[in-house]
Amino acid sequence: MLRDDVISFPDGAGATYTVVENPDSAFVVPYFDNGDTVLVRQWRHAWDISSWEVPAGTFDEGEDPAECARRELAEETGLVATRYSSLGVVRGAAFLTGRAHLFLAEGLTESARNPETYEQDMEVLRLPFTHALQAALEGQIVHSGSVTALCRAAHALELP
Amino acid sequence: MLRDDVISFPDGAGATYTVVENPDSAFVVPYFDNGDTVLVRQWRHAWDISSWEVPAGTFDEGEDPAECARRELAEETGLVATRYSSLGVVRGAAFLTGRAHLFLAEGLTESARNPETYEQDMEVLRLPFTHALQAALEGQIVHSGSVTALCRAAHALELP
Repeated sequence: MLRDDVISFPDGAGATYTVVENPDSAFVVPYFDNGDTVLVRQWRHAWDISSWEVPAGTFDEGEDPAECARRELAEETGLVATRYSSLGVVRGAAFLTGRAHLFLAEGLTESARNPETYEQDMEVLRLPFTHALQAALEGQIVHSGSVTALCRAAHALELP
Repeated sequence: MLRDDVISFPDGAGATYTVVENPDSAFVVPYFDNGDTVLVRQWRHAWDISSWEVPAGTFDEGEDPAECARRELAEETGLVATRYSSLGVVRGAAFLTGRAHLFLAEGLTESARNPETYEQDMEVLRLPFTHALQAALEGQIVHSGSVTALCRAAHALELP
């Protein structure tokens, strides 16, 4: 997981830079025809808080971004989407290699949830998208990737 | 930097969860009276790209969030602000402990830049805030913390 690289600064000096290799992930903003979205809440051990986030997860072996998005949305919320639009690819901390692939999911129908063992305490909340966006902008959502995904979704949907 | 914790799942099963301990950081959105902001561009070794971001950096020993924000803004851009407003505290990857403290900086005056050695190749760009926000929403800015900071700044400033 850790990798020590030797890098060069502009003045020619060298240094060791520690890179943390982590898998890519997919983040999904579901958007219902009536203007609702879905957030999920999970305990985050490293943060010592329970966090509201958009449905998301890391790639399984061999998955592509859209496959991961479809699987995570179904596992966490039971939702199946007919349309996926990319909201771009973003990065977190400077020392992490993993990218987050953001998606807007529309044309939604509900099926059964199928949470992973570690997701069985997850809460699922359907709410107006505008309320979720407000929570992202005013601080109730603290997960930066979720804030980014919700803001880009609002822009893509041309919401005020 | 790495810490292996034993955690319990809702079904009672135990597992090891690897936490990466990293320092807190401050992210600053400078906002000039004429509606301009400043972005900085830096090579990101772990991402293998050059990235446009808001001025930011990690806490020095014993610093509080506002001190770090003031120091990083001055070092990277030469700007001094008379007013700082909190835009909240956000988190990145689930396995990281470090928090990002977001600030809006107003009442700006310019002094000399004082970049760290590793920042000497940094480009500094003053541009209309609305252009930076558009770059955050449309994908030219890939750093999720910077996207979050710019979107929350737009909301705090009540920009359309």
